[in-house]
This record gives sequence, C-alpha cells and structure tokens, in this order.
Amino acid sequence: MTPEEFRQAGHQLIDWIADYRLSMEDKPVLAQVEPGDVRASLPASAPESAESFADVMADLDRVVVPGVTMVQHPMHFGWFPSNASLSSVLGDLASSGIGGLGISWESCPALTEVEEVVCDWMRQLVGLSDHWSGTIQDTASSACVVALLAARERTSNFSEASGGLQAQANPLVVYTTGQAHSSVVKAASIAGIGQDNVRMVDVDPWTRAMLPDCLAEAIADDLAAGRTPCAVVASVGTTGTTAVDPLPAINEVLARVETEHPMWLHVDAAMAGSAMLLKDYRWMWEGVEAADSLSFNPHKWLGTILDTSLFYVRDPQHLVRVLSTNPSYLQSSADGEVVQYRDWGIPLGRRFRALKLWFHLRLDGPDAIRARLRRDIDNAAWLAQQVERSEDWSVVAPVSLQTVCVRHQPPDLDGTGLEQHTQRWSAALNSSGRAFVTPSKLDDSWMVRVSVGVEATEQHHVAELWRLMQEAAAA
Amino acid sequence: MTPEEFRQAGHQLIDWIADYRLSMEDKPVLAQVEPGDVRASLPASAPESAESFADVMADLDRVVVPGVTMVQHPMHFGWFPSNASLSSVLGDLASSGIGGLGISWESCPALTEVEEVVCDWMRQLVGLSDHWSGTIQDTASSACVVALLAARERTSNFSEASGGLQAQANPLVVYTTGQAHSSVVKAASIAGIGQDNVRMVDVDPWTRAMLPDCLAEAIADDLAAGRTPCAVVASVGTTGTTAVDPLPAINEVLARVETEHPMWLHVDAAMAGSAMLLKDYRWMWEGVEAADSLSFNPHKWLGTILDTSLFYVRDPQHLVRVLSTNPSYLQSSADGEVVQYRDWGIPLGRRFRALKLWFHLRLDGPDAIRARLRRDIDNAAWLAQQVERSEDWSVVAPVSLQTVCVRHQPPDLDGTGLEQHTQRWSAALNSSGRAFVTPSKLDDSWMVRVSVGVEATEQHHVAELWRLMQEAAAA
Repeated sequence: MTPEEFRQAGHQLIDWIADYRLSMEDKPVLAQVEPGDVRASLPASAPESAESFADVMADLDRVVVPGVTMVQHPMHFGWFPSNASLSSVLGDLASSGIGGLGISWESCPALTEVEEVVCDWMRQLVGLSDHWSGTIQDTASSACVVALLAARERTSNFSEASGGLQAQANPLVVYTTGQAHSSVVKAASIAGIGQDNVRMVDVDPWTRAMLPDCLAEAIADDLAAGRTPCAVVASVGTTGTTAVDPLPAINEVLARVETEHPMWLHVDAAMAGSAMLLKDYRWMWEGVEAADSLSFNPHKWLGTILDTSLFYVRDPQHLVRVLSTNPSYLQSSADGEVVQYRDWGIPLGRRFRALKLWFHLRLDGPDAIRARLRRDIDNAAWLAQQVERSEDWSVVAPVSLQTVCVRHQPPDLDGTGLEQHTQRWSAALNSSGRAFVTPSKLDDSWMVRVSVGVEATEQHHVAELWRLMQEAAAA
Repeated sequence: MTPEEFRQAGHQLIDWIADYRLSMEDKPVLAQVEPGDVRASLPASAPESAESFADVMADLDRVVVPGVTMVQHPMHFGWFPSNASLSSVLGDLASSGIGGLGISWESCPALTEVEEVVCDWMRQLVGLSDHWSGTIQDTASSACVVALLAARERTSNFSEASGGLQAQANPLVVYTTGQAHSSVVKAASIAGIGQDNVRMVDVDPWTRAMLPDCLAEAIADDLAAGRTPCAVVASVGTTGTTAVDPLPAINEVLARVETEHPMWLHVDAAMAGSAMLLKDYRWMWEGVEAADSLSFNPHKWLGTILDTSLFYVRDPQHLVRVLSTNPSYLQSSADGEVVQYRDWGIPLGRRFRALKLWFHLRLDGPDAIRARLRRDIDNAAWLAQQVERSEDWSVVAPVSLQTVCVRHQPPDLDGTGLEQHTQRWSAALNSSGRAFVTPSKLDDSWMVRVSVGVEATEQHHVAELWRLMQEAAAA
C-alpha cells in the first residue's frame, strides 16, 4: 500500500471509528454470536491477490463488529474497565505510522526516552518518590513474572547463571492470598517455583485483605521446614472485590526477617493504581515505598489503550542482572550511558508504546482524568447505596473504589437454589445485550460484580443498570 | 477526546503519516541525537490540563522524529527488516478504534476467531500441514519462553503443579548453538533451567549450522552424567548469518533417544519464516513437521507491523496444561467449545492483533508480498556478487536469503588493525545518516551484516549502498 493509498483509506477508517464510537450505545454490549460464527463467516484461506479496501471494511461491519463484546459501551460493567480513550488511539496510530523498532537505545532513541519521560510523569502523578524507575510492559501478568524472576534470582544468589533453580537445595516460597490475581500462581509456575511453593495466606473474612499475622506464621513455618522465603505479592485492589492488602503491616513482618531472609515485595495495583491520581485514595498503598516492584495498568480505568502496563522497580539492576542480553549486533557507542529496556522485560523487540500514554495525558489532561475517576467512584457509591436500601439485596464486600459486589437473595432461596438464581439472573441480563456484569465467586458462592468505570458511563447509565438488575432478578 | 474531536485530529494524523512516509528518504537513517537529547526536550512533569492537538503534533516533529532511527528508510540495511506496511498500520488502527479486550473468548469472540483464521491462513501460505495450531505472540523471545516452558513441564512430568523445577532430581538440559538468538539462553534462564544447562552444540565452520553428530554426543554425555535432555532449539535463519540448522538430521538424533527421552524440538524461524511463502525456499525447514513448536515473525521481512510473532504448536494442550488459568470471573457457557488464547501465552489481556495481519494479507495480497521477497533476495545476491568480485572484499558467510555478511580486508591489515578498520568504516557509514548496516561479530571477529529487505528498498538503493560502503572503507 502506497502512502497515497494509505491517506485515502486512512481518512475512511478514521471516520468509521468516529461513527463506530458514536453509535456504540445502540449496539448490544455482549456479542450476540455463537462459537464458530465469526470463523465460519471468513474464507478458509487467504486471498491470492490484493482485495479492495471497501471489501475489507465491509467485512469489518459484517463479521467483526457483531463479534465484539463492547467493553467501550456505557452499559458495560464487566470485569474491569478496559478503556481505549481516543486520544491514546491516536498516540498508538502515531507509533504505528512512525514504525519505530525498539531493540536498543540506538534503534530508536525517542522510543526509549519518551518511555522514560512518561513513566516518570506517571510516577509523579500517582505520588511515588523518585526512587522508582519505570517501564511499560504488555500486562500486569508479565510484570508479575518479571518481578518473581528478579526475586528468585536475588534469593537464589543468581542461580540462573549456574545450574538454575534445579540446583537449589532449599525450595523458594512465594506468599500471596487466594484473592490475588490468577497471574501470581501462573508467574510462579513460569518461574519454575512450583505451585506447592505458593502460600495462600489467610484473609480477613470481610475486607478480604491479607492477615499479616498469618503471613508471619507461614514464613516461620517454611523457615522451620528448611524452605527459603522469597517474595510476597500483595494486592492493592484485588480483581474480585478491589480488596487492599495492608502494606505497612506486611512491611513490618518482612522487616522482622529481613536481615537473614530479605524478601522481594511486589505490589499488584493493576486496577487501583489509577485511583492513586487522587490524593485522598493514596492511603490504599501507604507503605508502597518499601516495596521492590509494583505494577499498575493505565490500560484499565485510566484509559490508555491496551497494552500499557506500568512496571516500577526500586533498583533496575535487579532486572538487568536477570534479563540482560548483549549480542554484538546490538552494541553501540551509547552503551552504558542509556537505558536498554530490552533488559527490563522478556521480549527483545518493542513497539513505541510510550506514545499512547503521552498522547493520552497531554490531550485529555490529568485534571479531566481525575474528574472522571471521581465521577465513577461516586456512581459506584450511589449504586451501593441503592442496593443496601433494597430488600433482599446486599453488598457483599467493601466498596473501596468503583467495584460493587452484590447478591440478590429472595427469602425462599439459599444453597444451590441461590447459586442458580444468581447465575440465572446475571446470565439473563448479560445475554439480553442491554448491559453486562460479571458473575463471580466469592467465598465459593456466586455473586455479581458491577465494575463502574467505562469512559462513556454516566450516572443515568448506572441508574438504568440498577433497574435492569432488579428486573432480571425479579423475572 | 470526543469522537468528533478524534475525527478531526485523526484526519490530520493520517496526512502526517502519509507525508512522513513520503519524505522519509530525505531524512538521515540513524537518529542524529545524543543520549538524553530527547528526554531533555520534554517537560519533566505531565501538564495539568489538556493541551492542543497542534502542540502535540509540533512536538512529534520537533522532538520525536529526530530521535527515530528510520528502519522504514530504503537505505536501512541494519539488524533484520522491521517493516511496518501501511496496510497493517490500518489494521492496527481498526483494532485500536474497536477497543476490544481479549481475556476470554466471550470478551471478544471476533478477536479469538479472526486470530484462529489468520494463523491458519499463514500456516497454509508457508506450507505447514494442518496438524499445527497457531497464535500470535508479541515476539519470538516470548514464544521461545513458552516453548521451553512446555518442554520443561513435559519432561518433568508437570513439575509446576507440585514443587516446581526445584524439586527435580536430575537437571533438565536444553541444546542449541552459539549462533542461535540470544533469547534462547534468556528463555532458559527465565524458565529456571540455568545457563549451565544450556549446551552450545558445535556448528560447521562455514555454514554455521548445527552439527548433528555433536548434538548426539552432547546428549549422550548428559545422559551418562545423570542429566535429563529436555529440548532442542534449532534455528532456521540465524540472526548473525541466516544459517540453517539441519532439521532432518536433528530429527534423526532425537528419534534415536525418543523412546526413553522424548525431547521437545522448537524451531526458531523468526526471520526465515517469511521466505517460506516461496516454495523453492522450503528446503530450509524440511523436517519441520517433526518439531513440537515453531515461531516466525511476520513483523520482520513480511511486513506486518510489530508486534506480530506467530507461534505454532503441534498440540496446544501442552500450552494449556502449563499456562491455563480459569478464575470464576472469566467462565462462560462457551467454555470447552472455544479456544482461550490466554492459556497459550504469558499475558492474560490481549489486543486484537489479528487485524493487522488480516488487513496486511488482504490489502497487499500474498502474490505482491512474494514478489517483494524475491526482489530482496535478488538484490542481496547482486550485492554478494559485487563484493566477491572486488579486491580486498569478501563475503564471510553463505548468503542463504537476504543477509550478506562482508568484510573489507586491505592487504596491510589483520588482527587488531583489521578489527578497528571494520568498526571504523561501518561506524562512519552509519553516523553519516546516509545508510545503516550492522557491525557484528562472527567467530570473534568483526564483520558487517547487510540485511536487505525494507519494503521501500529497490535495486538502486542497494547499488548506492555498495558505493557508500566502498567509499567508507577507502577513507
């Protein structure tokens, strides 16, 4: 495709996107397709020759759009928000248009340095000290892997340079809670630590926050059994209920064993990190300065389009030591003076991802982003109030941010009947296409998570959701 | 940013990109900035309020573009091509505009199914049997990690579900060559296997291909020492010289120990995979059907913009078994009937990456892509011929595709003098901004890699490069 063909097609696509976003509210939230429908609508083989742009756009409308669950829809209250602000869409387009390649500082100096700059802007916006250095990972899952690798290597005295983890005499142990994201156990598996060596520390039955005394006990038990405590993964805003593990108390536990057993503290603030733009919410990660690493996803509530997961560390040398590669073809005279982000994560080649965050912050502005976050918190509080005031409805976990976990329990239902009722009404609501919520398990029992925070969601949408929920539960 | 504001700014940005690509040839290839220049040109903190689109675009011109090494420039012959075809740029823009979220099939059915479809299109285009299933990873580095994880778990009888690698009695061993990509050792480190347990099997001194007898010997030695052979990573097109490990002979070695010690064979065809669109080059991966996994990067020579790395496996259950997570909030009625790509890689959330490959194949067409690949191979062959015919110049490795490795050796130079000469003339050429090549080490001695294959590079550009190389070496 020539630049002139691109110009023509590009203008059409920009209009298509603007119209798509403008008309989104008329579409069903949940994709109304069955497994295999999309696949069956497309040819089994690639075309041999070029097709027209009009044909591709027609398929976008005919095949792709009906197969999209509209997470940008104002009636989407599922999972966590995955906002794709249009300012960040432009930033990502600029990145693609430039076509830069990040494999070393030299291969695209601006790619590295704009990333340094925006990571530092974000650091300041969420109130972290200047002891932190940041990079952009694809997801918090990958950030968790990198954190556990750094932890593993620090604890094992750099085992990777010799016999690897398999040469360790005493198994390394990682501590988290059953409320933590599924990526923690996955990361421990990837790092070779093994699921038997992941401790699910008990949580408070109401706040679902880690109980520091139980952490201390688990560490003591492992030490007594000859195992080696390696890392704690604490959650600031869990996926289930946005629960907040108490960092100050966790730090105290770690400080007690630190001299003999320094442990790595990774803080997963994937969701709640956005709220740290609001000073009055920073109590949530009080104590974070004592952590070794933390991750926070602007591609969730903040609204920088996927994939933009910030990963901050106190000492990047821990990453470099574990993940560095320096083949001759990547060496240049700037080495030693510059950051080589390839040594801070798993992939070698990286996109110019900083541009989407840079465009987003500059074109929308932190003040407007903060106002939107407050709007969402207020809307969630309003919904929680309605639920609490209504007969047979209850809020089943503290509402610390914008996620409201609810259950509808008619007096005649409990046990299996109640489980089925919850699954039934939420499935009915979701399949209607009029709104989307997330059925999820809490303490082994189904409830419904309502996650407020899509960029387009206003108070009247939340009010409409509440009406639909009541309707679905009454049916 | 509202859709209407996006529409207006988007049109401007599309024009900016078209103009940027049209005027690229006038710009220096290598960014003419010093470490810190880009960073120093930007404010130390984020703005408090929104800035105008014009301001951001002005900074793109003022700060970003001068800091970009132009890998889309026709005079770029560095590293490997990292083509960003404008058709794929549009596909990625469509993905961003749609703002889909891949965390389960349900969260965006089209994201999963278009990925299935295009991975299958590509499978057919490169002549693989239908025993392969594909997914898109960010890079071949991540694909190699996933391959080694699957290998590790198969060999260790699923150690991650118990004590992890640290509970293994006999260390697992991975075999590759010193010519393989740096990501192989990195992946073994990440997986906890340890660098002492990565064997660099000897290569042929001219072809730089793995010597199968040496592989057999290394395996026998490890078995005799009580270690457990786990995986072979073979390269089809190494980064240094596009060397090709002999898959049929490697398969024979593995078949001999298979009954007692089944080993995982991962084929890294990151670069050369694109050439498999040309039937007459498929000899390069003859025997690939016996492998367990392979990776190939359309974001290199083929030209689908970063990050588009294809990863094919014979049996996806090996991935699912190792990488699966299934929290309650991601469960849906479609489970069991659909592919959950989150279980095929490290990250949970994924972008709608298939669209860029889909747009690219449909808008450019495989026939035109094939013609371009042939053009590049012919241009590389032409350059190799010029070099071979010229006094004091030599081609130092077989030219199997589009990479030509050369050295200029005046009669009065050898040893340190020659090393300095090679580094000096290549650095002079690169810093001039008129062309870019990669100085690289081969057998511990500096040479210059000329990688032909940028979409915009025509024969006259290669001729001009050859003139500039001679000029630089003579200076």
